Amino acid sequence: MVGQAEAVTAGLLVIGDEILSGRTKDRNIGYIAEYLTAVGIDLAEVRVVPDIEDEIVAALNALRTRYTYVFTTGGIGPTHDDITADAVAKAFDVSIDVDPRARAMLLERIAEADLNEARLRMARIPAGAELVANPVSKAPGFWIGNVIVMAGVPTIMQAMLDEVAPKLRTGVRMLSETVTANAKEGDIGGPLKAVAEIHTDVSIGSYPFMGEDGRPNTNLVLRSRDPARLAAAVAAVRMMVAEVHAARGTVGA
Amino acid sequence: MVGQAEAVTAGLLVIGDEILSGRTKDRNIGYIAEYLTAVGIDLAEVRVVPDIEDEIVAALNALRTRYTYVFTTGGIGPTHDDITADAVAKAFDVSIDVDPRARAMLLERIAEADLNEARLRMARIPAGAELVANPVSKAPGFWIGNVIVMAGVPTIMQAMLDEVAPKLRTGVRMLSETVTANAKEGDIGGPLKAVAEIHTDVSIGSYPFMGEDGRPNTNLVLRSRDPARLAAAVAAVRMMVAEVHAARGTVGA
Repeated sequence: MVGQAEAVTAGLLVIGDEILSGRTKDRNIGYIAEYLTAVGIDLAEVRVVPDIEDEIVAALNALRTRYTYVFTTGGIGPTHDDITADAVAKAFDVSIDVDPRARAMLLERIAEADLNEARLRMARIPAGAELVANPVSKAPGFWIGNVIVMAGVPTIMQAMLDEVAPKLRTGVRMLSETVTANAKEGDIGGPLKAVAEIHTDVSIGSYPFMGEDGRPNTNLVLRSRDPARLAAAVAAVRMMVAEVHAARGTVGA
Repeated sequence: MVGQAEAVTAGLLVIGDEILSGRTKDRNIGYIAEYLTAVGIDLAEVRVVPDIEDEIVAALNALRTRYTYVFTTGGIGPTHDDITADAVAKAFDVSIDVDPRARAMLLERIAEADLNEARLRMARIPAGAELVANPVSKAPGFWIGNVIVMAGVPTIMQAMLDEVAPKLRTGVRMLSETVTANAKEGDIGGPLKAVAEIHTDVSIGSYPFMGEDGRPNTNLVLRSRDPARLAAAVAAVRMMVAEVHAARGTVGA
């Protein structure tokens, strides 16, 4: 049996005033969600917090005690508002200082004469952390305990995720199948509920959308780690949809 | 003096498995962030949680005790996975049932014969809540205590936000000014920190970007509710940038 016990979970902490003010539109949540799902990790919660140390520490501690992994984005640049590394060190109660390995990485791109105090901020790494290479602009992320700290710039974050992904423990991949009902959500909600109550081990989501023909339509998304149970639920949903159409005299899925 | 005491804050709770699986890319966080900022409400925190009642209740209770308002999106449709209204009733410890006002709104769009049990789910409203009209598809949101429950479909959510906005208490609007440094973030990080340490009542964010000329550039975003303090900090930042360029022999902002 493939059960919940094998699930590997993650929390995501997005750090940055610019997301909360709306000045910058986050592009990382959707990317990370899709990426983790694809490798068999369930993203279970996301939080967005401002550049305030106590807020970052509190959210990080709440998430890291609860999920297999926590990913963070943002706040690891060279300016005074980049406080993620210090907040992570505080959350883990470890010291933080310029890391010679990180400094060496910065020097691959930055001349020694330009490695001022601001840029050296990007080499400040909590004690005991492993570095996460940044092939885009060198300044590394890091991995401490179950927390993986990444940049906020999407291209850099994506490269860092590629770096760490092979090292992550992954669960049995969540399988997903979509049945398009060719019906309004409200017309299938009742019978769908009955199917969901029988197939309790398969997650069934209902997502209305406007079809290209201008008529309301509904996608039913079934998710399970067990192929046989997923197939059984998909068959039940297809039959339910056919019955709804037969009863209404409409053309089914 | 215009102080923090006058700030009106908000939390945002995004509800839905489809956001966490990456199947649907959220388009509401950025919209709501920008909208609230524009009317003088500070979005202080965002959480994304799955369609699990205990998770919704816990997040809602954490946010509603902390911020002036909490906005939620998602989970108010006609299917079994739409559990937001029930979760909100549970969080407030009030009863929930089909609300005659909400039922009447549904009947503006749905024939009585089609108002099945599934569609009536959309009229289930916690006791004591005010309805939020939905000019797009009629099924209302609602407002209970300091919590405003909205649809997840962006066009409907946006219409609901327009409905409630005139009734919200708003703070003194946050003013914002951007100085483009024409310099790499790492070249101004040190002197910028010095400016930020003097102008502690102005929030100063630093956002690197790649200029159209292909050179790294940096936007410095200054935010305050006090026009005079903002102007003083902007002047200090402009002077700092000019000094950095003079010292490096480069062309300034």
